[in-house]
Amino acid sequence: MVANTSASYSITLRAEIQNQPGALGRLTSAIGEVGGDIGAIDIVRAGGGRVVRDITINARDDVHGREIVARVRAIEGLRVVNVSDRTFLLHLGGKIEIANRAPVKTRDDLSMAYTPGVARVCMAIHDDLSKAYSLTIKRNSVAVVSDGSAVLGLGNIGPEAAMPVMEGKAMLFKEFANVDAYPICVRTQDPDEIIRTVELIATGFGGINLEDISSPRCFYIEEELQRRLDIPVFHDDQHGTAIVVLAALLNSLKITGKRIDSIRVVVNGVGAAGVAVIRALHDAGVGEIIGLDTQGAIYTGRPQAMNSFKEEIAAYTNPDRIGGSLHDVLRGADVFIGLSSPDVVTADDLVRMRPDPIVFALANPIPEIMPEVAMGRVRVMATGRSDYPNQINNVLAFPGVFRGALDAQASTINSEMKLAAAQAVAETIADQDLTEEYIIPSVFNRRAAENVAEAVADAARRTGVARRQSQTAPDDEMVSML
Amino acid sequence: MVANTSASYSITLRAEIQNQPGALGRLTSAIGEVGGDIGAIDIVRAGGGRVVRDITINARDDVHGREIVARVRAIEGLRVVNVSDRTFLLHLGGKIEIANRAPVKTRDDLSMAYTPGVARVCMAIHDDLSKAYSLTIKRNSVAVVSDGSAVLGLGNIGPEAAMPVMEGKAMLFKEFANVDAYPICVRTQDPDEIIRTVELIATGFGGINLEDISSPRCFYIEEELQRRLDIPVFHDDQHGTAIVVLAALLNSLKITGKRIDSIRVVVNGVGAAGVAVIRALHDAGVGEIIGLDTQGAIYTGRPQAMNSFKEEIAAYTNPDRIGGSLHDVLRGADVFIGLSSPDVVTADDLVRMRPDPIVFALANPIPEIMPEVAMGRVRVMATGRSDYPNQINNVLAFPGVFRGALDAQASTINSEMKLAAAQAVAETIADQDLTEEYIIPSVFNRRAAENVAEAVADAARRTGVARRQSQTAPDDEMVSML
Repeated sequence: MVANTSASYSITLRAEIQNQPGALGRLTSAIGEVGGDIGAIDIVRAGGGRVVRDITINARDDVHGREIVARVRAIEGLRVVNVSDRTFLLHLGGKIEIANRAPVKTRDDLSMAYTPGVARVCMAIHDDLSKAYSLTIKRNSVAVVSDGSAVLGLGNIGPEAAMPVMEGKAMLFKEFANVDAYPICVRTQDPDEIIRTVELIATGFGGINLEDISSPRCFYIEEELQRRLDIPVFHDDQHGTAIVVLAALLNSLKITGKRIDSIRVVVNGVGAAGVAVIRALHDAGVGEIIGLDTQGAIYTGRPQAMNSFKEEIAAYTNPDRIGGSLHDVLRGADVFIGLSSPDVVTADDLVRMRPDPIVFALANPIPEIMPEVAMGRVRVMATGRSDYPNQINNVLAFPGVFRGALDAQASTINSEMKLAAAQAVAETIADQDLTEEYIIPSVFNRRAAENVAEAVADAARRTGVARRQSQTAPDDEMVSML
Repeated sequence: MVANTSASYSITLRAEIQNQPGALGRLTSAIGEVGGDIGAIDIVRAGGGRVVRDITINARDDVHGREIVARVRAIEGLRVVNVSDRTFLLHLGGKIEIANRAPVKTRDDLSMAYTPGVARVCMAIHDDLSKAYSLTIKRNSVAVVSDGSAVLGLGNIGPEAAMPVMEGKAMLFKEFANVDAYPICVRTQDPDEIIRTVELIATGFGGINLEDISSPRCFYIEEELQRRLDIPVFHDDQHGTAIVVLAALLNSLKITGKRIDSIRVVVNGVGAAGVAVIRALHDAGVGEIIGLDTQGAIYTGRPQAMNSFKEEIAAYTNPDRIGGSLHDVLRGADVFIGLSSPDVVTADDLVRMRPDPIVFALANPIPEIMPEVAMGRVRVMATGRSDYPNQINNVLAFPGVFRGALDAQASTINSEMKLAAAQAVAETIADQDLTEEYIIPSVFNRRAAENVAEAVADAARRTGVARRQSQTAPDDEMVSML
């Protein structure tokens, strides 16, 4: 498979060329010859018969970028001034910063924001700890916590190398839901030490987003942290994925006209996301679920490679205790959800599924089956990629989930809230707009986060985990103290 | 002593009054009668013979604020619509937020800031950890860490109630030195647990500012953390105070014409600030220092109430092992530095000091001796208060100290850097501008932070603790990777 060129591998090449007819043409032709995709061309300066231009070029990858630059350097009468990598430039100095919500320009400002005025605010919180929600950043702040043990598809790259991802996550929180998220990468991979550390620093946060923590450690860490804290703890690799998968399934069922309680769903891969998806499908009332790991179908009492969380899902999945491979269990299934590895599903597998198969092949970057291979054999197909229709992307869930949880000052994010989030993502597309190629909103559909936030806050209130009952509850009581 | 009215106790009173001559006069007179200090008067709306006005009033304290409101409510034909407390309003929802340094508006933005582009940035750090300084927020980020054990003069009010102070500190970092500081209040007061927690979360920070941690725990926590981390650890209550006190002393000596190596300095109070001041005076070459605790002068081998850090300062102070009270040791002293409690120095004490006494009475809000009492008996007087000349305020030090340390990517803040910071604060005032009432720059003198930053970065490079050698060292190498 030849990858497409992408902005994520884009370079800006600054070249000095002769200012004469044909010079620019030779340059652009050379780039085109080696497959570079030219974006903007700007003039930096011109004079003395020479012109300096910036050419932005999307490449396929690092090697391709170097190839393009080498080809340009070979052009006679042209000098490459420098080459910059747009992605690295974007990350330079980090991607987030702190902003003050009020000016500190005068003595009066200082005396209210800091000493002596701040002392009264401290004592108001000391006298009533619940005021931390109105008088500090807590009500809008989330810690994005990782130990760097399972970062993207890169594996255990450690906390320092995980920072750019956590900063990126913080950007998305701000951009899509105005949540103030701060990245905390911990220098330990001991679960109990991670739990204790997060517990100790939770003071100023209204929620904890766990991120890129390897399975099965992630289950214990999340569960134990939620037990200790009175703010939501949410491992996004699990629940963000589960919410968006469930949303996509709900809309796919509308298209195929199947009932959720009558379908059989096969989930391949029981890492963090797979387990969470299975739990969410069960909570949503899916008729029959079969989970698989590398040993095949999971069932209660399977002799090999079981553990506590596989036993847990086995208790409410695969009631007939069917054994066998992925190929075996796909026979007669309605839905395939892949959270596993490239190319494990064949075209023949799809033919043996029930009519109108629904296939979510979410392995990244190469899915369990490529859409080109599945074409004509499936009714609905989704991947994790942005270059095919129906991208399953957590960005549709986590910003709105935390926005809703913070607005309700929730103590947890329970399964009712997650289910409400999935329904809200699904309902962002009106029924009449649904098609096989449009079962999930675009990641840039801003209504998704708004709908999710409202649904999550409502569900928190309905299930008794909200501290703040009304969306318009006044904070003013505490400012009208006199 | 009657406190002055202050913006830190200011209220905004919204009142509906009759729109007729004399009505506003009756309102303002009533406020004046009970000692309220009127600031702005604005019209909110008018019509139907009535006008709604906002009146901003500085009060002395909560009780006085309530008294003013009660007096206004008693005015016939006037209705108080509501009363808001400007300080609480300023703190509502917290004082800082996250801002994105780049937009995330398009698929290209997303593919560079987050997946898939971010993966290359992660791997660049994974391959060379020092790149965390250029490719993440680390190079501009400081954690402001407190356990809430000694907050302002409020004592051990705990981590939740300490948050408004730490947020205020973060505001000052941003406002005065463009440092991105994030408040972390830890839910433990066990020194080893605090140390381990900060060690584990230090990944994304270029420095740690410890704040409002009680003495003597603060000494061990700072020392042990600095031993474990390769970024600066700086307890501001100690060193911020010491730097500004030393700066004030250096300028006072210029005025009195005394030499630093010939003076005797009495330091009353050996809490966090007192110990740090004594250490800094010693590093700066002060001739003789005598420290006192509540038991009197400290000297090597004193039978009562000694501990390891008092033994340490005793080793290089009070060489004649003078015992006795504050009154005893002030006889013949050149300088008094109080970091203790109100009204412990008398007018008679000042008379017995050497000619041209220098008195820094820094207890807050009521100094060791009030300036009114000292007047005529001292040559130079400073306090911690903004309503007298010569305010000793840490704001003059910590923003610039961290700016300089971050610019140099320093591994620590050593005594040379602190001394350089003190000299830079002092030299912010040109010699010809120095007077008895102007030995220390205003907290809003922006040049102080700039001068301190430059001096601290230079000292870091000179003493071999800087990772980044030149102020203009290019980061571009890493963006010109191709």
